[in-house]
Amino acid sequence: MAVRAAVAGASGYAGGELLRLLLTHPGIEIGALTGNSNAGQRLGALQPHLLPLADRVLEPTTPEVLAGHDVVFLALPHGQSAAVAERLGGDVLVIDMGADFRLEDAADWERFYGSPHAGTWPYGLPELPGARAALEGSKRVAVPGCYPTAVSLALFPAYAAGLAESEAVIVAASGTSGAGKALKPHLLGSEVMGSMSPYGVGGGHRHTPEMIQNLSAAAGERVSVSFTPTLAPMPRGILATCTAKSRPGVTAESVRAAYGKALADEPFVHLLPEGQWPTTASVHGSNAVVIQVAHDEAAGRIVAISAIDNLTKGTAGGAVQSMNIALGLDETTGLTTIGVAP
Amino acid sequence: MAVRAAVAGASGYAGGELLRLLLTHPGIEIGALTGNSNAGQRLGALQPHLLPLADRVLEPTTPEVLAGHDVVFLALPHGQSAAVAERLGGDVLVIDMGADFRLEDAADWERFYGSPHAGTWPYGLPELPGARAALEGSKRVAVPGCYPTAVSLALFPAYAAGLAESEAVIVAASGTSGAGKALKPHLLGSEVMGSMSPYGVGGGHRHTPEMIQNLSAAAGERVSVSFTPTLAPMPRGILATCTAKSRPGVTAESVRAAYGKALADEPFVHLLPEGQWPTTASVHGSNAVVIQVAHDEAAGRIVAISAIDNLTKGTAGGAVQSMNIALGLDETTGLTTIGVAP
Amino acid sequence: MAVRAAVAGASGYAGGELLRLLLTHPGIEIGALTGNSNAGQRLGALQPHLLPLADRVLEPTTPEVLAGHDVVFLALPHGQSAAVAERLGGDVLVIDMGADFRLEDAADWERFYGSPHAGTWPYGLPELPGARAALEGSKRVAVPGCYPTAVSLALFPAYAAGLAESEAVIVAASGTSGAGKALKPHLLGSEVMGSMSPYGVGGGHRHTPEMIQNLSAAAGERVSVSFTPTLAPMPRGILATCTAKSRPGVTAESVRAAYGKALADEPFVHLLPEGQWPTTASVHGSNAVVIQVAHDEAAGRIVAISAIDNLTKGTAGGAVQSMNIALGLDETTGLTTIGVAP
Amino acid sequence: MAVRAAVAGASGYAGGELLRLLLTHPGIEIGALTGNSNAGQRLGALQPHLLPLADRVLEPTTPEVLAGHDVVFLALPHGQSAAVAERLGGDVLVIDMGADFRLEDAADWERFYGSPHAGTWPYGLPELPGARAALEGSKRVAVPGCYPTAVSLALFPAYAAGLAESEAVIVAASGTSGAGKALKPHLLGSEVMGSMSPYGVGGGHRHTPEMIQNLSAAAGERVSVSFTPTLAPMPRGILATCTAKSRPGVTAESVRAAYGKALADEPFVHLLPEGQWPTTASVHGSNAVVIQVAHDEAAGRIVAISAIDNLTKGTAGGAVQSMNIALGLDETTGLTTIGVAP
Repeated sequence: MAVRAAVAGASGYAGGELLRLLLTHPGIEIGALTGNSNAGQRLGALQPHLLPLADRVLEPTTPEVLAGHDVVFLALPHGQSAAVAERLGGDVLVIDMGADFRLEDAADWERFYGSPHAGTWPYGLPELPGARAALEGSKRVAVPGCYPTAVSLALFPAYAAGLAESEAVIVAASGTSGAGKALKPHLLGSEVMGSMSPYGVGGGHRHTPEMIQNLSAAAGERVSVSFTPTLAPMPRGILATCTAKSRPGVTAESVRAAYGKALADEPFVHLLPEGQWPTTASVHGSNAVVIQVAHDEAAGRIVAISAIDNLTKGTAGGAVQSMNIALGLDETTGLTTIGVAP
Repeated sequence: MAVRAAVAGASGYAGGELLRLLLTHPGIEIGALTGNSNAGQRLGALQPHLLPLADRVLEPTTPEVLAGHDVVFLALPHGQSAAVAERLGGDVLVIDMGADFRLEDAADWERFYGSPHAGTWPYGLPELPGARAALEGSKRVAVPGCYPTAVSLALFPAYAAGLAESEAVIVAASGTSGAGKALKPHLLGSEVMGSMSPYGVGGGHRHTPEMIQNLSAAAGERVSVSFTPTLAPMPRGILATCTAKSRPGVTAESVRAAYGKALADEPFVHLLPEGQWPTTASVHGSNAVVIQVAHDEAAGRIVAISAIDNLTKGTAGGAVQSMNIALGLDETTGLTTIGVAP
Repeated sequence: MAVRAAVAGASGYAGGELLRLLLTHPGIEIGALTGNSNAGQRLGALQPHLLPLADRVLEPTTPEVLAGHDVVFLALPHGQSAAVAERLGGDVLVIDMGADFRLEDAADWERFYGSPHAGTWPYGLPELPGARAALEGSKRVAVPGCYPTAVSLALFPAYAAGLAESEAVIVAASGTSGAGKALKPHLLGSEVMGSMSPYGVGGGHRHTPEMIQNLSAAAGERVSVSFTPTLAPMPRGILATCTAKSRPGVTAESVRAAYGKALADEPFVHLLPEGQWPTTASVHGSNAVVIQVAHDEAAGRIVAISAIDNLTKGTAGGAVQSMNIALGLDETTGLTTIGVAP
Repeated sequence: MAVRAAVAGASGYAGGELLRLLLTHPGIEIGALTGNSNAGQRLGALQPHLLPLADRVLEPTTPEVLAGHDVVFLALPHGQSAAVAERLGGDVLVIDMGADFRLEDAADWERFYGSPHAGTWPYGLPELPGARAALEGSKRVAVPGCYPTAVSLALFPAYAAGLAESEAVIVAASGTSGAGKALKPHLLGSEVMGSMSPYGVGGGHRHTPEMIQNLSAAAGERVSVSFTPTLAPMPRGILATCTAKSRPGVTAESVRAAYGKALADEPFVHLLPEGQWPTTASVHGSNAVVIQVAHDEAAGRIVAISAIDNLTKGTAGGAVQSMNIALGLDETTGLTTIGVAP
C-alpha cells in the first residue's frame, strides 16, 4: 500500500524538486500540496516542469490540510517548521527540509538564526558515521543544508581517519537555486549571468556551524571552519573545494586509501578514478556525490573536492533518501546516480 | 524477459542521452556500447553523468559486437547507418537516430546530404497522422530530426485542420548540444555564452525538407518552409516559433479548438492553458512537448510555439518512444513528462 | 566648453549604460543623476561597474534638480516622460529613452500603451531615410525601442528598394536586460539560465506599431508585421530574424546590392561579408549593428538578420548618437564599433 | 607622434583583447598583426567584434614582419617568446603576455614548464611594492598571469603589513576565456554551461610559483600557497577567494586599515566600501580590480576577495598599463575602471 505524502511549501524550488522525485518514487502517493501566498493557484503556473501535477491546486498550510498523511515534508522558511510539526502526530513521519532541527547546540542556533532553538532531530545525512542507524524508524528527520552536505561528505573521511589538522578552509560555488525564488535584485538573470560573487564572507553563513558540528563529530575534536560561499552563473549545483592541513606522515596514498575505505559501500557517493575531477554538470538532477581528493605536498594540505546537485542530494534527494531509511524501504528507491548532462 | 539493446555511438550526446533513458527503462538490458575513435575508453571518462555505466568500456562498431541484441540503436554520423544496418538481421529492431532513412524523396536527400539515398523507414514521430500505426511491429525506425520534431508537432494541427496557407515561416533556437561534441571554434563555451547566432540561413539547413515532408502530408498539399535555426547560449532545448498565414474565417477560437482536438490524447504533447507560454527549461530532460498557439488578427497569422528538449523528445526520447511502440510495450515506458528545473 | 548632461533614471539598466558611455564621451560633463525609489543612495551600490561615479548620490527626479543642464536624458518608465519634459525649457535638449514620443499615430499609442498620446518627437534612428536631417538641431529626441532598432535596420533596405511584399514575419531573441531591473519571478537567474521562452505573442508587443511605422515609411505603403519576441539566457543582445516574401524577379544578387547601397555610408551599420553571420557577442557593449541577408529561393523569401546590443545601439548608444547629431557634434563621438568579446 | 605597435598572436583571446584596448588608446598606431596557423586570414573572421580591423589580414610571425615597430606585444604560447624576442632590437619595447619571463627561480620554471628558463624581465604588476619603478623606461616587460594578478593584489597588503601567517589558501574561479581558444572537449559550450569544475588541483597549476614569488616578496619570507583553480560558466572574469591565518592581535579594523593604506593611491585597485562584495560582472571589460576583505574571528583567518577581468587587467589591460609606464605615458591612458554590465 502506498505511503501518502504531503508537501508543505510546494511552490518553491525545494518543494518542486521534491515533487519531481516523488512523482517517480514507486512507493509514494502524492497527497496535499500547500503554499502560503500561492494557495489557490494551479501548480502548473508555478512549477511548469511538473506536467503530471499541472492541474493540482495549492492549499493553505494548515493542520487540517496536512492531516491524514503518512509523511509530511516541510519546505518552509527557517523558523516555521516547529509550529507546524507540533500539530502533527507522533506517528507521522515529519521531514524538515529547513534548518530548524539541524543544530545540536542551542547557542549556535540562536547566534546564527536569531530565534529560540526548537530542538534537534536525527540528521538526514546517512553517510556520516552513525547517522544511518539514527534515521532507521525515526519519525522526525532534519535534512541537512546543501553546503554542509557537500562539505561534510568531502572532508569527513579525512577527519575520521585522523589525517587532517582541525582547521578546514572551504570555498564553495553554488547555483542560484540555492538562494530560492526570492525576488532580490542580485538574483536577477541579468545580474547573475556572467558573474561570480561571494556572500556571507568571514564566518557569517548559517551553514558554518552545521559543518563544524559534522566535521568535529568525525574528528573527535573541535574543528574550526573558514567557509566562503560564492554564487555561480548556473541554476543548480555545488562545487565545494575543501582543504585542511595534513598531519605528519600523510601521503597521497594514505589519503586516497582512507577515502576509498570510508566511501566504499555508499550507494550515492563516488570517489572518482585518479585523474578525473568532479563537475557539477555530471550530477545535475541526480542524487550522486562525486568526490576527488589530492595531497598537495608542497603546501602540506589535503584538497578534497565534491560536486552535488544542491536541490537533489543537497535538499530533496537527501530528504527522500532519509525517508526511505526511516520507512524501512531500500535507501535508493526513487533516486538515481544518473545525471542529466550535458 | 528483458529486451537486450546495443548502442552504436555511445560516446556522443545522442548516445549518452539514450543511455540515460535506457538505464531507467524497466524492460531494457543494456548490451554492447560502441564507439569509433573512442573504442577502448571507459564510459566514465566520456559520459561522467552515467555513473552506473562508468566502468563499461566502449567496443568498436562492428557487426560482431552488435550481434545478439534485440534492439540496436544507431547514433552515428549521417551516412553511416545504412552500411551497419544491412549487416543486422531483419529480426533485429534497428532504430536509426541519424538522418539516413527519414526522407521519402531521394532527390531531396541527395540535394541536402550529397550522397545516394539509402531508403525510407517508418518515421518515429508517432503523433503525426498515421505514424503510430506504421511503427507498430516495425523492425526499422527512422528517428526524426530535433527541429522537425518541434516544428511538425507545433504546426501539423493547423495544417491538418485546413487553417493555414501553405507557406510557413519558422525560426527556432537550439541549445548547443544539438551541434554535437564536434570540436569547432564557434561551439567553444567562450563563444557561445552570451551570444545568439543564426546558421544555415536561407533554406540550407538539412532539416528543412523533413519539415516540408511532414507539413505537406498533414496539409494534403505542398507546404513551403522558410526555416532559420539559431544557436542559443544553453546546453539543451529547442524553442520553435512557427507561423503561417491563416485562411479566411480563422479565429483564435477555431485555432485553439483545432489544436485541442489534435493533441487531446497524446501522452507527451501538452497544449498549455491560455496565457501560459512554453519555456525550454520546463521540458529539460523530459519527453514532453509543450505548445501554445495564438492568432494574430492584425497580421493574419497563426503563431504556434513549441518547446522540447532536443536530446530527449528531439532525439533519444523519441527513439525510446518509437521502440516502445515497435516492441508492443506501453508507449510511455521509461519516459516522463517531468522536467528537471530550474 | 563641455556640455552638461543630467540623467533622470540613473539606477536602471538604460541609465547605467548611458552613464557608461557618457563617462568616456569627450564633450560631456555628467551633471545630476536622479532616481525615485533609489534617491539618496550611492550609485556605487546600484551600478557597481561605474567605479568613477561610485560616490555620486542619486537625487530625486524634480524640475529643480534637472534644471541648469544642456541635455537631459529621460530613462523613465513609459508614460512619465511628458510630465518631466514639459517642465524643462525649450532650449534644453531632451532625449527620451522611453516610448512616449515614438509613435506618430495617437490611436496606436492608446491601443498599445493605454494612456493618452503625448506627441511625437524626431525619431532617433538616424540611419532611416530622412531621420538624420530631422535630428539636426532638434531639441527633442525620441530614442527608438531596442527591437525596432534591430528590425528596422535589418529590413528597411529591402522595403526602400521595393524588393519585399508588405508582410514581414519577425522573430527576435533578446537578452534579459531588455526587461529591465524589475523584480519578476520569470526574470530570476534560476529561471532564465538554460531557458528560451516567448512573450507578447500574437501581435501584442508594444514595439510592433513602431516597427510597422518604420517599415511602412520605407516601403511607401502599409507593411503588416508578425512579431514574436523571445527571452534568451544572456544579459545583453538582440538577434532579429526578419523575413518577407520577395517580389518577382528578386535574386540573391539584387538583395545584396540593395543592402550594400543602403548601408554603405553608415558608420555603425555593417553588412557582413558573404558567409559570415551576425552574433550578438560581437556587438556586446558596442554601438554597431551587424547585418547579413540571404534570399531563400525555394521559399521565396528575403531573410535579413541583425545583431545589436540592446542597451547600447538599442537604447543608450542610440541616444548618444542622436545627441551628437542634435548638438552638431561628430555623430560617432563617444561611441565605437568595438565589441567586448568573448 | 604615435607609437607603433605590433601584435604577435592576434587571433587568440589575449591578442583580441589587446587590440580592443589599443584601438581606443590615443597614443598608439596599430601596426603588424601576426598569427601562425591563421596567417593569411581576415581578422574579421577571427575577431568579429573588432569591426575597425575587420579587413586587416594576419601575417606570419617573422622577424621581418615585426621589424619597424616601437612596441611588440607577444601573445604566444608559453615557450615561444624568447626566440622571437631575441630577434628584436634592444631599443624595441617587448611586452610578453606569456609566462616565459615571469619567474625569477629557474628551478621553479623548469619544474612547472618543463623547458629551460629563458630569464626574468621586469614584472608588469605595477601595484606590487617596487614594481612600478622597475617598469619605468624598461624595454622588456613580463605581463603577470591572470590568477597571480587577482591573488597577489588581494593578499599582498596583508603580507606587506605583517598581518598574516605564511600559508595562504586560495580558491579562484575563472571564466573560460582563461583557457584560450584551444579546441578541447571540456571547453565546449555544452560542457561548460551549467557546470563548475576544478583543474590543476593539488599544487600543479603553473601560476602557483608566481603567486608564491609575489607573496613571499611582500611578506619578506617564504609563503606557501595552496591554490585551486576552477572553471566557471562565464566567458570572462576571475573571482579569487584568498585566505590566510591571521597573526595574533589582528582585528577587522587593523586588516581594513592595512588594505586602505596599501591601495589608497592605486588608479585601478578599489577597496570596496564595507558591506559590498566584488562581482566579476562589475569589472567586465575594465582594468579595475575590486577587493573586499574580512577578518573571520572564529576561524582566525583573513579573507580577501578580488574580482578582475582575466582578459583585461589579467592580461591585455595589464600589458597596456605596463606599456604606458615603460613609455613614460600616463599609466591610465587607454584604460578605464568602467565595466560593461549587466
